[in-house]
Amino acid sequence: MAAPVTLLTDFGQSDAYVGILKGVMLGICPSLEFVDLTHEIPAQNVALASFQLQNAFPYFPAQTVHLAVVDPGVGSERRGIAVQLPTGFLVGPDNGLFTGVLAAAASQNWPVQVVELNQPQYWRTAQPSATFHGRDIFAPVAAHLARGVPLTHLGSSLSEADLQGLTLPTWCPTRGQGAIQAIDHFGNLITNIPGQVACGTWSLVYDSGQIPGGRTYSDQPLGTLLGLVGSHGWVEIAVNGNSAQARLQANVGDRVRLVNWVDNGLSAANCGEFKPSH
Amino acid sequence: MAAPVTLLTDFGQSDAYVGILKGVMLGICPSLEFVDLTHEIPAQNVALASFQLQNAFPYFPAQTVHLAVVDPGVGSERRGIAVQLPTGFLVGPDNGLFTGVLAAAASQNWPVQVVELNQPQYWRTAQPSATFHGRDIFAPVAAHLARGVPLTHLGSSLSEADLQGLTLPTWCPTRGQGAIQAIDHFGNLITNIPGQVACGTWSLVYDSGQIPGGRTYSDQPLGTLLGLVGSHGWVEIAVNGNSAQARLQANVGDRVRLVNWVDNGLSAANCGEFKPSH
Amino acid sequence: MAAPVTLLTDFGQSDAYVGILKGVMLGICPSLEFVDLTHEIPAQNVALASFQLQNAFPYFPAQTVHLAVVDPGVGSERRGIAVQLPTGFLVGPDNGLFTGVLAAAASQNWPVQVVELNQPQYWRTAQPSATFHGRDIFAPVAAHLARGVPLTHLGSSLSEADLQGLTLPTWCPTRGQGAIQAIDHFGNLITNIPGQVACGTWSLVYDSGQIPGGRTYSDQPLGTLLGLVGSHGWVEIAVNGNSAQARLQANVGDRVRLVNWVDNGLSAANCGEFKPSH
Repeated sequence: MAAPVTLLTDFGQSDAYVGILKGVMLGICPSLEFVDLTHEIPAQNVALASFQLQNAFPYFPAQTVHLAVVDPGVGSERRGIAVQLPTGFLVGPDNGLFTGVLAAAASQNWPVQVVELNQPQYWRTAQPSATFHGRDIFAPVAAHLARGVPLTHLGSSLSEADLQGLTLPTWCPTRGQGAIQAIDHFGNLITNIPGQVACGTWSLVYDSGQIPGGRTYSDQPLGTLLGLVGSHGWVEIAVNGNSAQARLQANVGDRVRLVNWVDNGLSAANCGEFKPSH
Repeated sequence: MAAPVTLLTDFGQSDAYVGILKGVMLGICPSLEFVDLTHEIPAQNVALASFQLQNAFPYFPAQTVHLAVVDPGVGSERRGIAVQLPTGFLVGPDNGLFTGVLAAAASQNWPVQVVELNQPQYWRTAQPSATFHGRDIFAPVAAHLARGVPLTHLGSSLSEADLQGLTLPTWCPTRGQGAIQAIDHFGNLITNIPGQVACGTWSLVYDSGQIPGGRTYSDQPLGTLLGLVGSHGWVEIAVNGNSAQARLQANVGDRVRLVNWVDNGLSAANCGEFKPSH
Repeated sequence: MAAPVTLLTDFGQSDAYVGILKGVMLGICPSLEFVDLTHEIPAQNVALASFQLQNAFPYFPAQTVHLAVVDPGVGSERRGIAVQLPTGFLVGPDNGLFTGVLAAAASQNWPVQVVELNQPQYWRTAQPSATFHGRDIFAPVAAHLARGVPLTHLGSSLSEADLQGLTLPTWCPTRGQGAIQAIDHFGNLITNIPGQVACGTWSLVYDSGQIPGGRTYSDQPLGTLLGLVGSHGWVEIAVNGNSAQARLQANVGDRVRLVNWVDNGLSAANCGEFKPSH
């Protein structure tokens, strides 16, 4: 049986573009199982795509192929890449999309193998469209990986150090200073503060207001702000039974400070360094 | 082959949360077939989730597992449950989500078996997240049911009478008095009046306006209000070629009266009792 | 293994209607692979549905069954049809939904076989709902096609010439005059000008402004308007890194003129005739 293929794009769901990716893959491997991660990434928001992919990656079987297409540079000189990790494959443009997953892999000292996609026999056509490499290069490559083609057949080896990275908001343990890195559908404000440091009695400061730390939404009365460690492993600001975003009108990048927190050995990090939690 | 698994949540589609549920299930059973019912339930709207699940349930094969996660009480003392019916399984929090399906089952005198989920060997982890039981408890349990684990392995037996119920709007046959219980994507106003009673010549009264009963949209000229028995089995208010909601600005809970209706033996019901149509 | 089934509707994703179609099909054929093309067609917009289906059709394996339900005339006298083409099947109402695919087939002189669906043994019930033929007729017929039932079993033969067509915006080569036929999720304005004629040095005129032709988004600086041949094969107006729709506030049907274009043998067409690109 072929491995599952996940899809993450900024294509939205009003056009048939996502369906076209799947049609192309079914033409290569008829029994594929697809899982949509999300197609509602705001157009060209590579950072949010990286965040979502990093959150989902750990929950999939080890042979899963993760196809991610948020690709503002399509048709330019930016490379296409495929990456092999011990628990899955990544396929997409080399524009920082995989920063989150690769940072998590690095924190666990996982081996990482990268190739630049330059073998057109694994593409839909040797003359790919200048505007839709998802259809013509990335989806075919993902389908070939899912049916068992080895990574090294798909292109020339690249050093991970040569990949494009993202500049992510930084978490500074020495000052307890972090930032909102994403806002989810429920209006939870997800910071870049790793959950491991939010032990004991802790609280958050946002926009000069203090927010008590807790364990789950119902630790506070309905309608009350609280901090907790979200299921993704990051500290988040939430409201029991409501949206923290609706309450606070926060933005990605806004600063959040952790108060009275416990340092679980992570504070040796420089303030400029980003420590993902997985 | 494993049974299909349906998913119904309030997670939206902009985050990877639904994908994570599927990744966890594929780790337990690699060949699962997933069907998304909807993930656009308004946050924490258990009543609408119950309505949607009741509508979809009758159309799935008998071994289907229906995983429903609309879970405002996650991390509190509310129970997790699994339910076996002659034509499918239900998995989710015990908060009224299954009220609609169970009422329909009761009206057909179906046997119902319920367990409280308390066997962590069928969970993703014995220390589930305080905020995402969907991922850590309900999805794993659904996958185990789909691959054939018997219900009784998953937890201790519960009486159906001990489950949390919903207070639903009531249909009062003696007065012809019902209410709007849902508004669909097309702007159709779906009442809680069972379609069986709308026989012969009938009409509806909403907000002191009379609306003629019909059989299908085109029974009235384009742009005209009409009543009909929707495909879900309930009486609904519609507009041929347009949205009744845009026209009437109605709300869930608004009263609707059925005029000149035929009693098909349902009028013995008390006005406080809710009679689902399936 | 059964053939894939694609689904394209105007049902939205907030109700369980799409899930119900899939449940019905799984009851007929338990191993079906579903691909959602889109369910966000604006209610009853048959022309846009035809456009999306035409774009997706060429990318699916040859036995794929394409189920399309945008059906304002449900319950009236409009026919249900199934169509066999060399590279797939179509199932849905006879209201113009398949105009795009059939025009593309005609331009390639493909054989086309059409039946009117009138064999209730292949339906969910011989008394279908007056408002949901998708569930009661089209989905069951699609599932039977996917599991291999021959087209001719499903109904009586119809001539393609008897099908309902759509009046589409026209592309007039002799005057270089076309129109916007769709606007996608990214705000790209997709015209009805076939990409084949946009060779050499060309530009577009929209609303008296001139827009240079290019090959891909990054051929122009960020934020700059350009024309290009989109991945769908049509000339489109785009903005590098942004939405042409947000910039121009265009509407479907707005005129666009191609300047200095190369005629690749298509200009013999009458101005009233529509030449699809596939």
